[in-house]
Amino acid sequence: MNYRITIQYDGSRYNGWQKQGNTSNTIQGRLEEVLERMAGQAVEVHGAGRTDAGVHALGQTANFHLQGEWDPGEIRRYLNRYLPDDIEVTAIDRVPPRFHSRLSAREKVYRYRIGTGGRKAVFERKYRYLYPGELDVEAMKQGAAFCIGTHDFKSFCANRHMKKSTVRTITEIAFGQKEGDLVITFTGDGFLYHMIRILTGTLLEIGSGQRRPEEMKEILEGKNRALAGRTAPAQGLMLVAVRYGDEYEV
Amino acid sequence: MNYRITIQYDGSRYNGWQKQGNTSNTIQGRLEEVLERMAGQAVEVHGAGRTDAGVHALGQTANFHLQGEWDPGEIRRYLNRYLPDDIEVTAIDRVPPRFHSRLSAREKVYRYRIGTGGRKAVFERKYRYLYPGELDVEAMKQGAAFCIGTHDFKSFCANRHMKKSTVRTITEIAFGQKEGDLVITFTGDGFLYHMIRILTGTLLEIGSGQRRPEEMKEILEGKNRALAGRTAPAQGLMLVAVRYGDEYEV
Repeated sequence: MNYRITIQYDGSRYNGWQKQGNTSNTIQGRLEEVLERMAGQAVEVHGAGRTDAGVHALGQTANFHLQGEWDPGEIRRYLNRYLPDDIEVTAIDRVPPRFHSRLSAREKVYRYRIGTGGRKAVFERKYRYLYPGELDVEAMKQGAAFCIGTHDFKSFCANRHMKKSTVRTITEIAFGQKEGDLVITFTGDGFLYHMIRILTGTLLEIGSGQRRPEEMKEILEGKNRALAGRTAPAQGLMLVAVRYGDEYEV
Repeated sequence: MNYRITIQYDGSRYNGWQKQGNTSNTIQGRLEEVLERMAGQAVEVHGAGRTDAGVHALGQTANFHLQGEWDPGEIRRYLNRYLPDDIEVTAIDRVPPRFHSRLSAREKVYRYRIGTGGRKAVFERKYRYLYPGELDVEAMKQGAAFCIGTHDFKSFCANRHMKKSTVRTITEIAFGQKEGDLVITFTGDGFLYHMIRILTGTLLEIGSGQRRPEEMKEILEGKNRALAGRTAPAQGLMLVAVRYGDEYEV
């Protein structure tokens, strides 16, 4: 049977989602450890988004196959009991065998939170990037508009040896507020390695007046990472939701 | 000149508000260190509430005297710059020389947050007590009603050698919800050492059915700490606000 879980985590103390060699301190690694203990069999957990070290998730999804009959509620309770307190399974359901959390995903939503106005925001400090200056949000919106649609985002990909396509579709970049902070929500069919953090870093350089909004167009056309802005810090980034087609909706 | 500050802090990694012997890791100690560096003089910071180790504050207040002329905005910026990221000064104002944050306080508001329904609540996990069972909130409200008014709260005081009066007035104990959690808000003229945590622990024993609501009356009348319930964990407690008379309002 194939199970899909929705997971929330505070990424602060993890080396990201994906298991890497002998670095066991990853979200995927923790999930697999607990599932293997529960099921007495090797379990591979496939995540929808490979969040970086320090990136958080409100609605990451993952799936795994288990031999035998398991009650979904029982799996969820077991996971929540034995996972650390900074990882929580918020939903679980049985999905068709062909479902794969990453390959079946239609849309992903990420949110980047920027602390402006000098507020340290003690209780949210690990989930935002405290930005030291003033920002021209209108200019940032103008810059972001160039990214909407289907483009080659090679300039926003930190993986220099990326052999696969760097073409992606961004359907929306929305600017909002949360308790006085600036929140940018990115919706698209998928994102390249560090793509949202480089987009955000570039938007911050536009917002601070270091770049003109129109440069965003030139950066996209240049297809060169060196043209884009700095990579914004991991801690401001949150994977909010992963959406699937109707056939996989609960 | 006398200055009053409003302070927010995540108490998780501190030994509480008050400086104690050679334990420097307290909120008061951190504030004094930074103020002394700024002013080049010894500064004593008086807090309104002596929060325990692990207790948080959304609106603690404190005051201190400084020789010479200082711009309040400048003091605030200096403090926020050099204080750790889990302590923030959210307001500052000049107050009359006789103002004392604790002695002048008329009312204090504390909030205790109880995680119910099994949610781990990853992003708020340090600011709530994850309660493992079901709670009868109506019974808790009945028990709490016995505490409203002026009573001798000796049974709810952890300091066995308390020589001063243990009489206090609680004006309100309100039950609310926050993202599915149970939140109890206590308002009164002052609270004894561990008083809110013992009240909460006793209310939890009522909510779980281990005690009847009417026992609250007997516990108060018995004036004996051993009669009351366990002390609820520090991390669920937050000092929300300290209120002063009109003469000290900004």
